[in-house]
Amino acid sequence: MKYCSHCARPVVVEIPPGDSLPRHVCRHCGRIFYKNPRLVVGTLPRRDGRILLCKRSIEPRRGYWTLPCGFMENHETLEEGALRETREEAPADYELGPLHALFSLPHVSQVYAIFLAELRTDEVAAGEETSEVLLVRQDQIPWPRIAFRAIEFALQRFCAAPEEAGRQVHVGSHASTLSGAWIEAEEDD
Amino acid sequence: MKYCSHCARPVVVEIPPGDSLPRHVCRHCGRIFYKNPRLVVGTLPRRDGRILLCKRSIEPRRGYWTLPCGFMENHETLEEGALRETREEAPADYELGPLHALFSLPHVSQVYAIFLAELRTDEVAAGEETSEVLLVRQDQIPWPRIAFRAIEFALQRFCAAPEEAGRQVHVGSHASTLSGAWIEAEEDD
Repeated sequence: MKYCSHCARPVVVEIPPGDSLPRHVCRHCGRIFYKNPRLVVGTLPRRDGRILLCKRSIEPRRGYWTLPCGFMENHETLEEGALRETREEAPADYELGPLHALFSLPHVSQVYAIFLAELRTDEVAAGEETSEVLLVRQDQIPWPRIAFRAIEFALQRFCAAPEEAGRQVHVGSHASTLSGAWIEAEEDD
Repeated sequence: MKYCSHCARPVVVEIPPGDSLPRHVCRHCGRIFYKNPRLVVGTLPRRDGRILLCKRSIEPRRGYWTLPCGFMENHETLEEGALRETREEAPADYELGPLHALFSLPHVSQVYAIFLAELRTDEVAAGEETSEVLLVRQDQIPWPRIAFRAIEFALQRFCAAPEEAGRQVHVGSHASTLSGAWIEAEEDD
């Protein structure tokens, strides 16, 4: 950010009075511009004991596998956003289930919220940001080719106790021991 | 938003190619400016069977009671943000507990995440945005004077089954039957 989006004068980075963190501040019109973490919402869709995965057709992590998810929009609930993103990434008929996982990625200022979902049709299309959609058994999950740490977390927690899924929300965050590859991919996101 | 924060030229509102919603777009440098929901993080602190409440010293809802919470910052986890906000609003020593409630407010594009916490000291100060801090029994909660719908939800779900607290995450969203007063206050937030 270089200029005030309200009056077009240059902004400075400074700690506003009463605040504790540096912000972009316009000294001309007095506006303060806050940056806040973004929510990524999506689902872990199931059908007949299998899990739906999407192969990413866009960067970051093109060619890697993910659950259908994306950035939450203004004026929607977590549930509405999760279902909307699922339908965008892998168009089909879904029934939203309970919240499954919440995962913080502080290095990229993102929080993932992944719900369970039931896929209710045999046909699933690939959305614009998806090159391929697969229904896999747990032993078929391509772990080294999972796109993001938060998706790995949601899948791992599901596979650890599939019969318990939906009874508990799994809350986690990226460990400082994350490999550089994860961090690089997520910073591009 | 009137001007591009990167090149200071006027922005327009239009649906970018491949997108489905109108965004602020700079036709000069090509940047697209997304607006996303904000996370509000905080806690429901307990000590000896009582709940800590904060009276707001700032608008919106000045003079009304809330749980200690505030906007999540970049580069922190949900847990770090919740504990930071709690210490800012009601400075004392706390131990963070499990996630208790998640609440979407689509009309103001906010999502609240409220954790349980244990207050570990007898002394609690009032932070800068707090005029008064109280420890109340459940039957002393000033329900008509609770500042925000999401806080009411977190308190209601706690009071409905205090012995179950922490075993389940309560997920909710504002109902369309919300009174005008709630909506007005939250839109100012």
